[in-house]
Amino acid sequence: MEDGTKIERGFTLWFTGLSGAGKTTVSEIVEKQLRRRRGKVEVLDGDIVRTNLSKGLGFSREDRDTNVLRIGFVAKMLTRNGIGVVVSAISPYKEARDEVRRDIGDGFIEIYVHCPIEVCADRDVKGLYKRAYAGELPAFTGVSDPYEPPAAPELVLNTDQEKPEESARKVMAKLEELGYLDPVEEFSRA
Amino acid sequence: MEDGTKIERGFTLWFTGLSGAGKTTVSEIVEKQLRRRRGKVEVLDGDIVRTNLSKGLGFSREDRDTNVLRIGFVAKMLTRNGIGVVVSAISPYKEARDEVRRDIGDGFIEIYVHCPIEVCADRDVKGLYKRAYAGELPAFTGVSDPYEPPAAPELVLNTDQEKPEESARKVMAKLEELGYLDPVEEFSRA
Repeated sequence: MEDGTKIERGFTLWFTGLSGAGKTTVSEIVEKQLRRRRGKVEVLDGDIVRTNLSKGLGFSREDRDTNVLRIGFVAKMLTRNGIGVVVSAISPYKEARDEVRRDIGDGFIEIYVHCPIEVCADRDVKGLYKRAYAGELPAFTGVSDPYEPPAAPELVLNTDQEKPEESARKVMAKLEELGYLDPVEEFSRA
Repeated sequence: MEDGTKIERGFTLWFTGLSGAGKTTVSEIVEKQLRRRRGKVEVLDGDIVRTNLSKGLGFSREDRDTNVLRIGFVAKMLTRNGIGVVVSAISPYKEARDEVRRDIGDGFIEIYVHCPIEVCADRDVKGLYKRAYAGELPAFTGVSDPYEPPAAPELVLNTDQEKPEESARKVMAKLEELGYLDPVEEFSRA
């Protein structure tokens, strides 16, 4: 900044979607690629945040929204300092996500990680759907709690139809398109 | 980073001390000077943080420590990305501050804003000491709740003996001494 060097614009990639849709899987590939192509990256994963910022919060709408707004508060500070932030959180309510969008402004990039719930339940990586359908989890998103899809996300990933690497490629392409990453030159001109 | 330009090292100035000792007053001057001399600065003020990260937390030891560790969590992320972070929080317990110190590592700079409690109570900017001495505030640091001074802070400010501008100057000098700021050239050599 002080010597007129190129400043990287910060951004927040906000992965939203059902449990098991592939948010973390895709965002981990994206993180790795970002680290190679860009200096500064921070990951705010839903679970890490629940431990460090939101211990004690439950899964009521109010608590979920508080959790999302806290992630947003931290993401905003990082974004405005030129960091590339990768957020991976179910964040089921549109209103809270939209509040974060307004708060962060231009750098907010909402990525809807879409996957039919039957496929998520079939994957059931954490064994949570089984318990939710058995009635053991009273506020499980998609089963016993609502999920409100984004109305106008910057990107939709259909993880039942594409491999994680392909989804990650789309995210990187979106970052290039929006001017947050320089395109990689794949061919020399000679 | 990618073009070998000078990278600014991040740091966390952690102002600790009694209510009314002058943490916010001094840190606001420091913030202003840092913004002139350095690109990236973020302020994590105790009150702002209580609103955005710690709503619902009270003033038990556990809640105070949770609050301090949350500030530390955010400060660490900013610090490792080259940001200059200014934290202003009573943070009365040594153990929690030391945990943040370990977590942040080198960039953690603890500033003990020292002022005799009689002077703080005399200033009583927020009218809180009056209420605390009247027994209305059950967990007020220094009156009805402990304050554990730092054992080996990087800097001690005696705000009953020096003006805020002088305290701020000492902070800036400490940052220069520790290599986080280039010294200002006040005289030309000609």
